Amino acid sequence: MGTLYGIGVGPGDPDYITLKGYKKLQQAPVVFVPAGKNGKAGIAYGIVKEHIPPEAEIVVLDFPMKSLSADREELDAKWQENAALTAQKLKDCDGVFLTLGDPMVFSTYSYITDYLKQHGVTCETIPGIPSFCGLASALSVPLTQGEESFAVVSMTQPENEIAAVLDANQNIVVMKVSAGTELLAKLLQERALENSFILVSNIGMPEERIVTDIKELSGRLPYLSTMLVKKNDDFK
Amino acid sequence: MGTLYGIGVGPGDPDYITLKGYKKLQQAPVVFVPAGKNGKAGIAYGIVKEHIPPEAEIVVLDFPMKSLSADREELDAKWQENAALTAQKLKDCDGVFLTLGDPMVFSTYSYITDYLKQHGVTCETIPGIPSFCGLASALSVPLTQGEESFAVVSMTQPENEIAAVLDANQNIVVMKVSAGTELLAKLLQERALENSFILVSNIGMPEERIVTDIKELSGRLPYLSTMLVKKNDDFK
Repeated sequence: MGTLYGIGVGPGDPDYITLKGYKKLQQAPVVFVPAGKNGKAGIAYGIVKEHIPPEAEIVVLDFPMKSLSADREELDAKWQENAALTAQKLKDCDGVFLTLGDPMVFSTYSYITDYLKQHGVTCETIPGIPSFCGLASALSVPLTQGEESFAVVSMTQPENEIAAVLDANQNIVVMKVSAGTELLAKLLQERALENSFILVSNIGMPEERIVTDIKELSGRLPYLSTMLVKKNDDFK
Repeated sequence: MGTLYGIGVGPGDPDYITLKGYKKLQQAPVVFVPAGKNGKAGIAYGIVKEHIPPEAEIVVLDFPMKSLSADREELDAKWQENAALTAQKLKDCDGVFLTLGDPMVFSTYSYITDYLKQHGVTCETIPGIPSFCGLASALSVPLTQGEESFAVVSMTQPENEIAAVLDANQNIVVMKVSAGTELLAKLLQERALENSFILVSNIGMPEERIVTDIKELSGRLPYLSTMLVKKNDDFK
Protein backbone atom coordinates (compact mmCIF):
# COMPACT_ATOMS: atom_id res chain seq x y z
CA MET A 1 0.00 0.00 0.00
CA GLY A 2 1.29 3.49 -0.90
CA THR A 3 1.69 6.63 1.15
CA LEU A 4 -0.65 9.61 0.85
CA TYR A 5 0.98 13.03 1.14
CA GLY A 6 -1.51 15.63 2.31
CA ILE A 7 -0.23 18.94 0.95
CA GLY A 8 -1.42 22.43 1.88
CA VAL A 9 -1.26 24.56 -1.28
CA GLY A 10 -1.68 27.87 0.58
CA PRO A 11 -4.25 30.63 0.03
CA GLY A 12 -3.94 31.43 -3.69
CA ASP A 13 -0.49 32.18 -5.12
CA PRO A 14 0.76 29.01 -6.91
CA ASP A 15 4.25 29.65 -5.53
CA TYR A 16 3.08 29.70 -1.89
CA ILE A 17 3.25 25.89 -1.87
CA THR A 18 6.26 24.68 0.12
CA LEU A 19 9.33 23.40 -1.69
CA LYS A 20 8.63 19.98 -0.11
CA GLY A 21 5.04 19.97 -1.35
CA TYR A 22 6.18 21.07 -4.81
CA LYS A 23 8.72 18.23 -5.05
CA LYS A 24 6.15 15.62 -3.98
CA LEU A 25 3.61 17.01 -6.43
CA GLN A 26 6.12 16.85 -9.30
CA GLN A 27 6.59 13.10 -8.72
CA ALA A 28 2.97 12.19 -7.98
CA PRO A 29 1.35 9.51 -10.19
CA VAL A 30 -2.07 10.25 -8.60
CA VAL A 31 -3.37 13.61 -7.37
CA PHE A 32 -6.53 13.71 -5.26
CA VAL A 33 -8.41 17.02 -5.28
CA PRO A 34 -11.59 18.11 -3.51
CA ALA A 35 -14.39 19.05 -5.92
CA GLY A 36 -15.69 22.58 -6.33
CA LYS A 37 -19.35 23.57 -6.39
CA ASN A 38 -19.79 22.33 -9.97
CA GLY A 39 -18.42 18.86 -9.14
CA LYS A 40 -15.19 19.50 -11.07
CA ALA A 41 -11.71 19.90 -9.54
CA GLY A 42 -11.97 22.79 -7.04
CA ILE A 43 -9.93 25.76 -5.78
CA ALA A 44 -6.91 23.85 -4.40
CA TYR A 45 -6.39 22.21 -7.81
CA GLY A 46 -6.81 25.53 -9.60
CA ILE A 47 -4.11 27.16 -7.49
CA VAL A 48 -1.30 24.68 -8.25
CA LYS A 49 -2.39 23.09 -11.53
CA GLU A 50 0.69 24.56 -13.29
CA HIS A 51 2.87 22.40 -10.99
CA ILE A 52 1.06 19.10 -11.67
CA PRO A 53 2.82 16.81 -14.18
CA PRO A 54 0.65 16.28 -17.29
CA GLU A 55 0.83 12.47 -16.97
CA ALA A 56 -0.59 12.45 -13.42
CA GLU A 57 -4.05 10.98 -12.86
CA ILE A 58 -6.39 13.55 -11.28
CA VAL A 59 -9.04 12.05 -8.95
CA VAL A 60 -11.78 14.48 -7.96
CA LEU A 61 -13.36 13.73 -4.56
CA ASP A 62 -16.73 15.20 -3.67
CA PHE A 63 -16.97 16.69 -0.17
CA PRO A 64 -20.45 18.20 0.29
CA MET A 65 -20.50 21.74 1.74
CA LYS A 66 -22.55 20.82 4.80
CA SER A 67 -22.58 21.91 8.40
CA LEU A 68 -20.36 19.74 10.57
CA SER A 69 -22.73 19.96 13.51
CA ALA A 70 -26.03 19.53 11.64
CA ASP A 71 -25.12 16.98 8.94
CA ARG A 72 -22.41 14.92 10.59
CA GLU A 73 -23.78 11.53 9.54
CA GLU A 74 -24.08 12.41 5.87
CA LEU A 75 -20.57 13.87 5.90
CA ASP A 76 -19.18 10.85 7.70
CA ALA A 77 -20.57 8.45 5.10
CA LYS A 78 -18.99 10.56 2.35
CA TRP A 79 -15.61 10.62 4.12
CA GLN A 80 -15.65 6.82 4.37
CA GLU A 81 -16.55 6.50 0.70
CA ASN A 82 -13.75 8.89 -0.34
CA ALA A 83 -11.26 7.07 1.90
CA ALA A 84 -12.16 3.71 0.32
CA LEU A 85 -11.74 5.12 -3.20
CA THR A 86 -8.43 6.75 -2.26
CA ALA A 87 -7.07 3.55 -0.68
CA GLN A 88 -7.97 1.57 -3.81
CA LYS A 89 -6.01 3.98 -6.03
CA LEU A 90 -2.99 3.79 -3.68
CA LYS A 91 -2.67 0.00 -3.80
CA ASP A 92 0.47 0.13 -5.95
CA CYS A 93 1.69 3.73 -5.76
CA ASP A 94 1.96 6.87 -3.64
CA GLY A 95 -0.32 9.85 -4.12
CA VAL A 96 -0.89 13.42 -3.01
CA PHE A 97 -4.03 15.06 -1.64
CA LEU A 98 -4.30 18.82 -2.19
CA THR A 99 -5.91 21.08 0.39
CA LEU A 100 -6.47 24.85 0.41
CA GLY A 101 -4.39 26.72 3.01
CA ASP A 102 -2.99 24.40 5.68
CA PRO A 103 -4.21 20.76 6.04
CA MET A 104 -4.61 21.12 9.83
CA VAL A 105 -6.68 24.35 9.78
CA PHE A 106 -10.37 23.88 8.87
CA SER A 107 -9.61 21.15 6.36
CA THR A 108 -11.54 18.15 5.12
CA TYR A 109 -8.28 16.23 4.81
CA SER A 110 -8.07 15.82 8.58
CA TYR A 111 -11.36 13.86 8.58
CA ILE A 112 -10.48 11.27 5.99
CA THR A 113 -7.00 10.43 7.34
CA ASP A 114 -8.52 8.41 10.19
CA TYR A 115 -10.46 6.27 7.72
CA LEU A 116 -7.43 5.94 5.42
CA LYS A 117 -5.41 4.48 8.27
CA GLN A 118 -8.06 1.76 8.66
CA HIS A 119 -7.36 0.82 5.02
CA GLY A 120 -3.63 0.54 5.79
CA VAL A 121 -2.69 3.81 4.05
CA THR A 122 0.19 5.78 5.63
CA CYS A 123 -0.55 9.51 5.68
CA GLU A 124 2.18 12.14 5.81
CA THR A 125 1.16 15.76 6.08
CA ILE A 126 3.06 18.68 4.55
CA PRO A 127 1.87 21.98 6.01
CA GLY A 128 0.73 24.98 3.95
CA ILE A 129 0.37 28.73 4.38
CA PRO A 130 -2.93 29.37 6.20
CA SER A 131 -5.15 32.04 4.62
CA PHE A 132 -4.70 34.39 7.60
CA CYS A 133 -0.90 34.40 7.17
CA GLY A 134 -1.32 35.21 3.48
CA LEU A 135 -3.69 38.04 4.40
CA ALA A 136 -1.33 39.52 7.02
CA SER A 137 1.63 39.50 4.61
CA ALA A 138 -0.43 41.05 1.81
CA LEU A 139 -1.63 43.85 4.12
CA SER A 140 1.73 44.20 5.93
CA VAL A 141 -0.18 43.96 9.20
CA PRO A 142 1.34 41.62 11.83
CA LEU A 143 -1.06 39.02 13.24
CA THR A 144 0.58 39.25 16.66
CA GLN A 145 3.72 40.68 18.22
CA GLY A 146 5.49 40.48 21.56
CA GLU A 147 3.27 39.43 24.45
CA GLU A 148 -0.12 39.32 22.74
CA SER A 149 -2.35 36.42 21.79
CA PHE A 150 -4.24 35.90 18.55
CA ALA A 151 -7.27 33.82 17.69
CA VAL A 152 -9.11 32.61 14.62
CA VAL A 153 -12.91 32.51 14.90
CA SER A 154 -15.68 31.94 12.35
CA MET A 155 -18.97 33.86 12.08
CA THR A 156 -20.70 30.47 11.79
CA GLN A 157 -20.05 29.92 15.53
CA PRO A 158 -22.64 30.89 18.17
CA GLU A 159 -22.74 34.59 19.23
CA ASN A 160 -21.53 33.90 22.80
CA GLU A 161 -18.46 32.06 21.49
CA ILE A 162 -17.57 34.87 19.07
CA ALA A 163 -18.03 37.46 21.84
CA ALA A 164 -15.79 35.47 24.23
CA VAL A 165 -13.03 35.22 21.61
CA LEU A 166 -13.25 38.97 20.91
CA ASP A 167 -12.98 39.67 24.66
CA ALA A 168 -10.13 37.27 25.44
CA ASN A 169 -7.62 38.03 22.67
CA GLN A 170 -5.74 41.14 21.57
CA ASN A 171 -5.73 40.11 17.89
CA ILE A 172 -8.56 38.24 16.17
CA VAL A 173 -8.97 36.90 12.63
CA VAL A 174 -12.68 36.59 11.79
CA MET A 175 -13.41 34.08 9.00
CA LYS A 176 -16.67 33.73 7.03
CA VAL A 177 -17.64 37.33 7.85
CA SER A 178 -20.49 37.20 5.31
CA ALA A 179 -22.29 34.62 7.50
CA GLY A 180 -22.97 37.31 10.15
CA THR A 181 -22.00 40.79 8.99
CA GLU A 182 -24.54 42.74 11.08
CA LEU A 183 -23.85 40.71 14.21
CA LEU A 184 -20.13 41.34 13.81
CA ALA A 185 -20.70 45.11 13.43
CA LYS A 186 -22.78 45.06 16.63
CA LEU A 187 -20.15 43.09 18.57
CA LEU A 188 -17.40 45.50 17.47
CA GLN A 189 -19.47 48.57 18.41
CA GLU A 190 -20.31 47.16 21.86
CA ARG A 191 -16.55 46.89 22.47
CA ALA A 192 -15.60 50.31 20.98
CA LEU A 193 -13.57 48.52 18.29
CA GLU A 194 -15.02 50.49 15.34
CA ASN A 195 -11.59 51.76 14.28
CA SER A 196 -9.60 48.64 15.14
CA PHE A 197 -10.43 46.39 12.22
CA ILE A 198 -9.50 45.89 8.59
CA LEU A 199 -11.61 43.73 6.29
CA VAL A 200 -10.54 42.34 2.94
CA SER A 201 -12.84 40.79 0.36
CA ASN A 202 -11.61 38.73 -2.61
CA ILE A 203 -7.96 39.25 -1.74
CA GLY A 204 -5.58 39.22 -4.71
CA MET A 205 -8.43 39.24 -7.25
CA PRO A 206 -9.38 42.13 -9.56
CA GLU A 207 -12.47 42.80 -7.39
CA GLU A 208 -10.42 43.01 -4.15
CA ARG A 209 -11.91 45.46 -1.68
CA ILE A 210 -10.62 46.76 1.68
CA VAL A 211 -13.07 48.06 4.31
CA THR A 212 -12.15 49.98 7.48
CA ASP A 213 -15.43 51.92 7.90
CA ILE A 214 -17.90 50.16 10.18
CA LYS A 215 -20.84 51.64 8.22
CA GLU A 216 -19.90 49.46 5.26
CA LEU A 217 -20.41 46.36 7.40
CA SER A 218 -24.17 46.76 7.17
CA GLY A 219 -24.25 45.92 3.45
CA ARG A 220 -23.89 42.57 1.75
CA LEU A 221 -20.28 41.37 1.63
CA PRO A 222 -18.68 38.83 -0.72
CA TYR A 223 -18.33 35.22 0.51
CA LEU A 224 -14.53 35.46 0.59
CA SER A 225 -14.27 38.19 3.24
CA THR A 226 -11.90 38.01 6.19
CA MET A 227 -11.46 40.54 9.00
CA LEU A 228 -8.46 41.28 11.16
CA VAL A 229 -9.27 42.92 14.53
CA LYS A 230 -6.32 44.44 16.39
CA LYS A 231 -7.31 46.08 19.67
CA ASN A 232 -4.11 48.09 19.98
CA ASP A 233 -4.22 49.48 16.41
CA ASP A 234 -6.22 52.15 14.64
CA PHE A 235 -6.89 51.55 10.94
CA LYS A 236 -8.86 54.74 10.29
CA MET B 1 16.76 51.85 -3.77
CA GLY B 2 16.15 48.10 -3.80
CA THR B 3 13.31 45.98 -2.48
CA LEU B 4 13.56 43.89 0.66
CA TYR B 5 11.79 40.53 0.55
CA GLY B 6 10.89 39.36 4.03
CA ILE B 7 10.75 35.56 3.84
CA GLY B 8 9.37 33.17 6.43
CA VAL B 9 11.54 30.04 6.39
CA GLY B 10 9.12 27.94 8.44
CA PRO B 11 9.73 26.00 11.65
CA GLY B 12 12.74 23.79 10.83
CA ASP B 13 12.61 21.64 7.70
CA PRO B 14 14.67 23.41 4.97
CA ASP B 15 12.03 22.41 2.39
CA TYR B 16 9.17 24.07 4.31
CA ILE B 17 10.15 27.39 2.71
CA THR B 18 7.65 28.38 -0.01
CA LEU B 19 8.58 27.98 -3.65
CA LYS B 20 8.35 31.79 -3.95
CA GLY B 21 10.71 32.32 -1.03
CA TYR B 22 13.10 29.72 -2.42
CA LYS B 23 13.21 31.44 -5.83
CA LYS B 24 13.88 34.86 -4.26
CA LEU B 25 16.57 33.41 -2.02
CA GLN B 26 18.31 31.76 -4.99
CA GLN B 27 18.66 35.17 -6.70
CA ALA B 28 19.51 37.26 -3.63
CA PRO B 29 22.78 39.20 -3.70
CA VAL B 30 22.35 40.12 0.00
CA VAL B 31 20.75 37.98 2.72
CA PHE B 32 19.93 39.57 6.09
CA VAL B 33 19.70 37.16 9.01
CA PRO B 34 18.91 37.75 12.68
CA ALA B 35 21.79 36.77 15.00
CA GLY B 36 21.62 33.87 17.40
CA LYS B 37 22.67 33.99 21.05
CA ASN B 38 26.38 33.83 20.17
CA GLY B 39 26.15 36.83 17.80
CA LYS B 40 26.55 34.65 14.70
CA ALA B 41 23.85 33.91 12.09
CA GLY B 42 20.90 32.38 13.99
CA ILE B 43 18.25 29.68 13.58
CA ALA B 44 16.50 31.05 10.46
CA TYR B 45 19.83 31.06 8.60
CA GLY B 46 20.67 27.56 9.81
CA ILE B 47 17.38 26.18 8.50
CA VAL B 48 17.79 27.30 4.88
CA LYS B 49 21.53 27.76 4.49
CA GLU B 50 21.64 24.97 1.89
CA HIS B 51 19.41 27.13 -0.35
CA ILE B 52 21.56 30.29 -0.15
CA PRO B 53 23.84 30.85 -3.17
CA PRO B 54 27.52 30.74 -2.14
CA GLU B 55 28.23 34.17 -3.66
CA ALA B 56 25.53 35.93 -1.60
CA GLU B 57 26.64 38.41 1.08
CA ILE B 58 25.32 37.39 4.52
CA VAL B 59 24.57 40.31 6.85
CA VAL B 60 23.96 39.30 10.47
CA LEU B 61 21.68 41.70 12.37
CA ASP B 62 21.64 41.69 16.15
CA PHE B 63 18.18 41.76 17.75
CA PRO B 64 18.54 41.58 21.54
CA MET B 65 16.27 39.00 23.24
CA LYS B 66 14.51 41.55 25.46
CA SER B 67 10.98 41.95 26.72
CA LEU B 68 8.88 44.08 24.41
CA SER B 69 6.98 45.65 27.30
CA ALA B 70 9.93 46.23 29.67
CA ASP B 71 12.74 47.21 27.27
CA ARG B 72 10.90 48.90 24.42
CA GLU B 73 13.25 51.89 24.13
CA GLU B 74 16.40 49.80 23.88
CA LEU B 75 14.76 47.55 21.30
CA ASP B 76 13.50 50.51 19.32
CA ALA B 77 16.97 52.02 19.06
CA LYS B 78 18.31 48.69 17.80
CA TRP B 79 15.52 48.38 15.20
CA GLN B 80 16.38 51.84 13.85
CA GLU B 81 20.06 50.99 13.69
CA ASN B 82 19.36 47.70 11.86
CA ALA B 83 17.00 49.46 9.44
CA ALA B 84 19.65 52.08 8.61
CA LEU B 85 22.28 49.39 7.97
CA THR B 86 19.84 47.37 5.84
CA ALA B 87 18.83 50.41 3.77
CA GLN B 88 22.49 51.24 3.10
CA LYS B 89 23.14 47.73 1.75
CA LEU B 90 20.06 47.95 -0.49
CA LYS B 91 21.10 51.16 -2.25
CA ASP B 92 21.89 49.35 -5.51
CA CYS B 93 20.29 45.91 -5.18
CA ASP B 94 17.43 43.87 -3.74
CA GLY B 95 17.84 41.69 -0.68
CA VAL B 96 16.05 39.12 1.42
CA PHE B 97 15.45 39.05 5.17
CA LEU B 98 15.00 35.60 6.72
CA THR B 99 12.61 35.02 9.62
CA LEU B 100 11.75 31.87 11.56
CA GLY B 101 8.18 30.62 10.99
CA ASP B 102 5.94 33.31 9.47
CA PRO B 103 7.05 36.98 9.26
CA MET B 104 3.69 38.21 10.63
CA VAL B 105 3.55 35.92 13.70
CA PHE B 106 5.77 37.02 16.63
CA SER B 107 8.52 38.25 14.32
CA THR B 108 11.13 40.97 14.65
CA TYR B 109 10.81 41.65 10.93
CA SER B 110 7.47 43.38 11.43
CA TYR B 111 9.15 46.03 13.64
CA ILE B 112 11.89 47.08 11.26
CA THR B 113 9.72 47.37 8.13
CA ASP B 114 8.24 50.67 9.39
CA TYR B 115 11.72 52.15 9.75
CA LEU B 116 12.83 50.73 6.39
CA LYS B 117 9.97 52.54 4.67
CA GLN B 118 11.29 55.82 6.11
CA HIS B 119 14.57 55.09 4.30
CA GLY B 120 12.68 54.58 1.02
CA VAL B 121 13.00 50.77 1.02
CA THR B 122 10.06 48.85 -0.45
CA CYS B 123 9.21 45.78 1.63
CA GLU B 124 7.43 42.75 0.21
CA THR B 125 6.53 39.93 2.55
CA ILE B 126 6.45 36.25 1.61
CA PRO B 127 4.64 34.21 4.26
CA GLY B 128 6.04 31.11 5.94
CA ILE B 129 4.75 28.05 7.79
CA PRO B 130 4.08 29.10 11.41
CA SER B 131 5.53 26.76 14.05
CA PHE B 132 2.05 25.68 15.22
CA CYS B 133 1.12 24.46 11.72
CA GLY B 134 4.36 22.46 11.55
CA LEU B 135 3.57 20.97 14.95
CA ALA B 136 0.00 20.00 14.01
CA SER B 137 1.14 18.28 10.79
CA ALA B 138 3.93 16.42 12.58
CA LEU B 139 1.51 15.15 15.23
CA SER B 140 -1.39 14.59 12.77
CA VAL B 141 -3.59 16.57 15.14
CA PRO B 142 -5.82 19.22 13.48
CA LEU B 143 -5.53 22.71 14.99
CA THR B 144 -9.22 23.36 14.38
CA GLN B 145 -12.12 21.83 12.46
CA GLY B 146 -15.67 22.78 11.59
CA GLU B 147 -17.21 25.40 13.85
CA GLU B 148 -14.46 25.78 16.45
CA SER B 149 -12.03 28.61 17.13
CA PHE B 150 -8.34 28.35 17.87
CA ALA B 151 -5.95 30.71 19.61
CA VAL B 152 -2.23 31.13 20.11
CA VAL B 153 -1.12 32.38 23.53
CA SER B 154 2.27 32.68 25.22
CA MET B 155 3.12 31.78 28.83
CA THR B 156 4.91 35.15 29.04
CA GLN B 157 1.48 36.87 29.09
CA PRO B 158 -0.25 37.73 32.41
CA GLU B 159 -2.18 34.89 34.11
CA ASN B 160 -5.59 36.51 33.62
CA GLU B 161 -4.99 36.80 29.85
CA ILE B 162 -3.90 33.15 29.56
CA ALA B 163 -6.94 32.03 31.58
CA ALA B 164 -9.30 34.09 29.39
CA VAL B 165 -7.85 32.56 26.20
CA LEU B 166 -8.18 29.03 27.66
CA ASP B 167 -11.81 29.75 28.55
CA ALA B 168 -12.84 31.39 25.27
CA ASN B 169 -11.46 28.98 22.67
CA GLN B 170 -11.98 25.28 21.89
CA ASN B 171 -8.40 24.81 20.66
CA ILE B 172 -5.36 26.59 22.09
CA VAL B 173 -1.67 26.55 21.13
CA VAL B 174 0.46 27.53 24.14
CA MET B 175 3.89 28.90 23.22
CA LYS B 176 6.89 29.34 25.56
CA VAL B 177 5.51 26.74 27.97
CA SER B 178 8.80 26.68 29.89
CA ALA B 179 8.17 30.29 31.03
CA GLY B 180 5.30 29.11 33.27
CA THR B 181 5.04 25.33 33.45
CA GLU B 182 3.51 25.09 36.95
CA LEU B 183 1.03 27.90 36.28
CA LEU B 184 -0.08 26.14 33.09
CA ALA B 185 -0.58 22.83 34.95
CA LYS B 186 -2.71 24.67 37.53
CA LEU B 187 -4.82 26.41 34.87
CA LEU B 188 -5.46 23.10 33.08
CA GLN B 189 -6.42 21.31 36.31
CA GLU B 190 -8.83 24.10 37.30
CA ARG B 191 -10.59 23.52 33.98
CA ALA B 192 -10.54 19.69 34.07
CA LEU B 193 -8.33 19.68 30.97
CA GLU B 194 -5.73 17.23 32.33
CA ASN B 195 -6.33 14.76 29.48
CA SER B 196 -6.93 17.29 26.73
CA PHE B 197 -3.40 18.41 25.93
CA ILE B 198 -0.33 17.22 24.09
CA LEU B 199 3.05 18.84 24.63
CA VAL B 200 6.08 18.51 22.37
CA SER B 201 9.62 19.53 23.24
CA ASN B 202 12.42 19.91 20.67
CA ILE B 203 10.23 18.77 17.80
CA GLY B 204 12.06 17.01 14.97
CA MET B 205 15.32 16.84 16.94
CA PRO B 206 16.94 13.65 18.36
CA GLU B 207 15.88 14.75 21.88
CA GLU B 208 12.21 15.21 20.87
CA ARG B 209 9.84 14.40 23.72
CA ILE B 210 6.04 14.15 23.83
CA VAL B 211 4.15 14.67 27.10
CA THR B 212 0.47 13.92 27.74
CA ASP B 213 0.69 13.27 31.51
CA ILE B 214 -0.01 16.38 33.59
CA LYS B 215 2.34 15.13 36.33
CA GLU B 216 5.29 15.67 34.00
CA LEU B 217 4.38 19.35 33.77
CA SER B 218 5.78 19.99 37.24
CA GLY B 219 9.37 19.35 36.14
CA ARG B 220 11.70 21.55 34.14
CA LEU B 221 10.88 21.57 30.42
CA PRO B 222 13.14 22.48 27.48
CA TYR B 223 12.90 26.03 26.10
CA LEU B 224 11.45 24.79 22.81
CA SER B 225 8.23 23.31 24.22
CA THR B 226 4.81 23.93 22.70
CA MET B 227 1.44 22.63 23.92
CA LEU B 228 -1.74 21.98 22.00
CA VAL B 229 -4.92 22.03 24.12
CA LYS B 230 -8.05 20.57 22.48
CA LYS B 231 -11.08 20.64 24.75
CA ASN B 232 -13.01 18.09 22.71
CA ASP B 233 -10.16 15.55 22.50
CA ASP B 234 -8.63 13.06 24.91
CA PHE B 235 -4.91 12.39 24.45
CA LYS B 236 -4.52 9.87 27.28
